[in-house]
Amino acid sequence: MKYEIDLNSDMGENFGPWAIGDNVDKEIMPYISSANIAAGFHAGDPNTINQTIELAKYYDIAIGAHPGFRDLVGFGRRNINMPPQELTNDIIYQLGALREFATLYRLPLQHIKPHGALYMHLSRDQAAAQFFVETLHRLAPDLLLYCMHDSAVWQAAKKLQHPVICEFYADRDYDRSGSIVFTRRVGRLDPEQVAQKVLRACREGKVRTIEGDDIPVVFDSVCIHSDTPGALALIKAIREQLHAADINVKSPARIISYPTE
Amino acid sequence: MKYEIDLNSDMGENFGPWAIGDNVDKEIMPYISSANIAAGFHAGDPNTINQTIELAKYYDIAIGAHPGFRDLVGFGRRNINMPPQELTNDIIYQLGALREFATLYRLPLQHIKPHGALYMHLSRDQAAAQFFVETLHRLAPDLLLYCMHDSAVWQAAKKLQHPVICEFYADRDYDRSGSIVFTRRVGRLDPEQVAQKVLRACREGKVRTIEGDDIPVVFDSVCIHSDTPGALALIKAIREQLHAADINVKSPARIISYPTE
Amino acid sequence: MKYEIDLNSDMGENFGPWAIGDNVDKEIMPYISSANIAAGFHAGDPNTINQTIELAKYYDIAIGAHPGFRDLVGFGRRNINMPPQELTNDIIYQLGALREFATLYRLPLQHIKPHGALYMHLSRDQAAAQFFVETLHRLAPDLLLYCMHDSAVWQAAKKLQHPVICEFYADRDYDRSGSIVFTRRVGRLDPEQVAQKVLRACREGKVRTIEGDDIPVVFDSVCIHSDTPGALALIKAIREQLHAADINVKSPARIISYPTE
Amino acid sequence: MKYEIDLNSDMGENFGPWAIGDNVDKEIMPYISSANIAAGFHAGDPNTINQTIELAKYYDIAIGAHPGFRDLVGFGRRNINMPPQELTNDIIYQLGALREFATLYRLPLQHIKPHGALYMHLSRDQAAAQFFVETLHRLAPDLLLYCMHDSAVWQAAKKLQHPVICEFYADRDYDRSGSIVFTRRVGRLDPEQVAQKVLRACREGKVRTIEGDDIPVVFDSVCIHSDTPGALALIKAIREQLHAADINVKSPARIISYPTE
Repeated sequence: MKYEIDLNSDMGENFGPWAIGDNVDKEIMPYISSANIAAGFHAGDPNTINQTIELAKYYDIAIGAHPGFRDLVGFGRRNINMPPQELTNDIIYQLGALREFATLYRLPLQHIKPHGALYMHLSRDQAAAQFFVETLHRLAPDLLLYCMHDSAVWQAAKKLQHPVICEFYADRDYDRSGSIVFTRRVGRLDPEQVAQKVLRACREGKVRTIEGDDIPVVFDSVCIHSDTPGALALIKAIREQLHAADINVKSPARIISYPTE
Repeated sequence: MKYEIDLNSDMGENFGPWAIGDNVDKEIMPYISSANIAAGFHAGDPNTINQTIELAKYYDIAIGAHPGFRDLVGFGRRNINMPPQELTNDIIYQLGALREFATLYRLPLQHIKPHGALYMHLSRDQAAAQFFVETLHRLAPDLLLYCMHDSAVWQAAKKLQHPVICEFYADRDYDRSGSIVFTRRVGRLDPEQVAQKVLRACREGKVRTIEGDDIPVVFDSVCIHSDTPGALALIKAIREQLHAADINVKSPARIISYPTE
Repeated sequence: MKYEIDLNSDMGENFGPWAIGDNVDKEIMPYISSANIAAGFHAGDPNTINQTIELAKYYDIAIGAHPGFRDLVGFGRRNINMPPQELTNDIIYQLGALREFATLYRLPLQHIKPHGALYMHLSRDQAAAQFFVETLHRLAPDLLLYCMHDSAVWQAAKKLQHPVICEFYADRDYDRSGSIVFTRRVGRLDPEQVAQKVLRACREGKVRTIEGDDIPVVFDSVCIHSDTPGALALIKAIREQLHAADINVKSPARIISYPTE
Repeated sequence: MKYEIDLNSDMGENFGPWAIGDNVDKEIMPYISSANIAAGFHAGDPNTINQTIELAKYYDIAIGAHPGFRDLVGFGRRNINMPPQELTNDIIYQLGALREFATLYRLPLQHIKPHGALYMHLSRDQAAAQFFVETLHRLAPDLLLYCMHDSAVWQAAKKLQHPVICEFYADRDYDRSGSIVFTRRVGRLDPEQVAQKVLRACREGKVRTIEGDDIPVVFDSVCIHSDTPGALALIKAIREQLHAADINVKSPARIISYPTE
């Protein structure tokens, strides 16, 4: 049973003249507690980063870097086969770019969350996960790493005692193995159902799989993809249900900063 | 007084996961007669090109290549200072890429229309205009070149007797010099006003400038930018007014192919 | 025993200000019979394409398109996981871009040869190979497809009777299965040894594997990578040995066009 | 008369598989005192940045960020027309990316030096210079800004008392107005002549212009472009002459740390 939970969402995933999904960053931002800000390789350009951090600052939302594969046209959703050091260098590059804008706005970087195919690759590939986490730990030992419980990157972080935030995916289905079922296009979801799913996960620590079983889920943060059609309605419904259940939405930085809770 | 007019619009300006403007290519396509299809450098990726040509084929709309500066993040709206041969090579590259998809769908390429800052540069820079038109004429002597009357590229084409189609900009203001007043963001326009402006241009060959004068306009085609907010409403209003005035909307290829009309 | 053989090499793999390998396109071009010209996604920009085709024309070398994954920084050597239609669209785009420059120089396109990781993917993945070859065959039924004997793409081409040219890799090792052993960096090879290997393959149709066995090789063309260190020396040595053995170096277009030989 | 001088050179300007110029970063690095490291937009990828900073650390050379226009194919040498905030955001992005790798190697960033057309634009355009310097000063008030004496960016820095390092261009010609004469391709220069020019500038504060006059030059650092053909020989000759004249080569960070001079 949780009394506090983080809500994270990908923000700043426009690029140049183009808007992603329903283009609702401005509407979604006040409802989340942590923003994963695209850092330029799969989405997000310097102007967009600048505006998104300004927006996060306005609503006092914790920010993190959201690096992806260098693949604009594929939105970082296609795996690119590259060695651990290469992908780690790509992450460092994007992390720094993002951090500099955070510095400009006198904001701390709370976390890092790899995007799309890079997230999945680091969840599965031990060599990549280990090289990345070792480098990250040397570079930024306090930067929270968003990941899935028990994934390769989670295990690598655990070994080095690098702080992690485990995620529950509100708008994705789970299968019996505990994996999320990624699909390239996600249909419109029912906000009430999604909110109930989140609430149950928070209260009981369980989720119903596509096979119909219940499995346990371990998490500190609920992820809602901002480019899911109808994302805004999903997030509002989740917030409402959490509020009604007396579960506070707070970023990990805030939860950590009030250690008595 | 015109009895037939071409309506052209930029199509296929999405990129990867991102949609441009109101994302209304599918709605706009049936109302135009010529589609300028983005060719990859300022917008448009191979999948988008493929889908857009398939869409044009479905509605039997004439197609052309719409090459731009190599500048995705700036949407080809920022001038890049480069020598005439370099920009001509960039155009040839994009033209060929577009043409190959046209070939795949057994469609002829009707025209070429440079985009944004490249269009403006070729309107003003004689050396660039001349190198480009000479190369184009050697490469594709029958490919219609969309341009502004009396611009540098128009003059270069005239010298070589390369066929041109002059444009009237429905959704842009003109100044006293006959130049269109480019703005980076165009506000929502009143469809009836725009339609009246087009109708008057077709009937009287005149447009009111921002200074309040009337100036003559010479044109064969009316351009409506598909990324103008409310573009679909503009195009529908224009079609209605033209229809009411017995002015047929036809692509140049059709007009040329029925010379008795 | 062959009396005629094609020598193909990748050309035009510079990009912008940068030169690939020993930067010896100009030196290598006169020694080969078919040039695979990079088409912009893994290497090659419009200026480079233009210059390379001009160079090929000067030496009367047959040209082909050499499309790759959209991955400049990885030089198209990293596999990008994408569906068959997406990679086929990427190939069509590059093929057309290349073909337009060929048209400008009044040269026919002889062939197409995918590059690097795209070549390997099409060698192994049946769905990708089939979609690609079906599209290619519809688009350009006479365009020779360079590939490895018995690979997925070769089999797809055979089914549709699309014309293929099988390759022997002069500067790569073979293993017992007949696969070439790809390495990211190839060390400097001994020109005489490589030339002997080619000569034996031409005469006996055999190659020694890394395991020490002899296996049969079926091929119509010998590939030498122009970015292999010392590529020029390799090609010269091969030409000399072939000349001494009375084996003529000729492009497939030439061999086909003189059917009595 | 100077007793200490900084030698700066652009480093890390390879990209992916491609090497710039003579590819002599490793040879040049030990001879300079400050390295301007390309940050990804005009050259330099994350792997190259990583290697270049490691190299600089090995030779204990001061490092700086070398941001450019987003224009790989044009190597950042073509002006891209964009508003002050947009180019400033592009610079911040690259600065941060570079800084993160510096942090990884526990190295401080000494300076920032815009590249190519961006350098020239900031030298001439007051609005761009002012916006950029104001943002830089807010972001990193101690980061040395390399620029030309009396240029727009220099004046903006002076107004805010942002620390600057003025440059003398060893491998470029000056005209009567004190401007350097930029050429796209620089021919091979005579090392002795260049070294004499540098020595005279250090001793007498003067340089001979292309018109044949002497003009005064104000500078703290001598720039040699590493992609100038024969750059290594130039740098060695300069070092030798400076050594013979008892002028020490030191980075500004080092010179500043000995305040008695």
